[in-house]
Amino acid sequence: MYKIDHIGIAVKDMKAANSLYSKLLNCDPYKQELVVAQKVLTSFFQTGESKVELVAGQATNNPIDKFIEKKGEGIHHVAFKVDDIKKEMARLKAEGFQLLSEEPTKGADNMWVCFVHPKSAKGVLIELVQPMLPE
Amino acid sequence: MYKIDHIGIAVKDMKAANSLYSKLLNCDPYKQELVVAQKVLTSFFQTGESKVELVAGQATNNPIDKFIEKKGEGIHHVAFKVDDIKKEMARLKAEGFQLLSEEPTKGADNMWVCFVHPKSAKGVLIELVQPMLPE
Repeated sequence: MYKIDHIGIAVKDMKAANSLYSKLLNCDPYKQELVVAQKVLTSFFQTGESKVELVAGQATNNPIDKFIEKKGEGIHHVAFKVDDIKKEMARLKAEGFQLLSEEPTKGADNMWVCFVHPKSAKGVLIELVQPMLPE
Repeated sequence: MYKIDHIGIAVKDMKAANSLYSKLLNCDPYKQELVVAQKVLTSFFQTGESKVELVAGQATNNPIDKFIEKKGEGIHHVAFKVDDIKKEMARLKAEGFQLLSEEPTKGADNMWVCFVHPKSAKGVLIELVQPMLPE
């Protein structure tokens, strides 16, 4: 079964966004993590079984600043936790969904991840995640 | 504590979107509901403790078609469940967040709801929801 693992929010200034979302959600982020491969800095807030992830671009030519240039700050993706990401990728491919990678890649927060193209999902960038370690 | 209650996805054609998201999430929607006051048709999928809500505009001059005209189909809002919506509205107001109504209004799925202006929250339209009936 799919569970919402997190929503990812694209922000320009992590310090300002962290401060704002701490007030809004009335709690502090539980961790920040630099994801070098994706050139992003992330910050996570726990909200029930799901999380809110703030994402800011790092270095030149990163995907978040490109997104913000086009669409402005806002919700960038929604991630669903699955039990078996490879099986789920195969199922979605067979159903005609376009995946952004052939194999799972390493994402933030100790997850194997794969993205589904927004054109496949009514404009929504969907991420599948599977914890690298047993929970 | 805040929990993600649902994410709302703005779609043009509910029939097509329902079919696509049933495949994507590998489950059927558990209900559809017309919210007359907001001129929208909604469809809900259960994903863990949270839900995915598809929202399509009904009648002329509805907020969803306006959103789609500007931004295209995609994630429209994220809703957080709170224990006491009036208290939470007062807290956010005191913190400087701009609310879209002075009092909670009736939303879909038997909820009292209030929206926070996206300008207050880094481009994210945030909905607070409180169940009308005890859970």
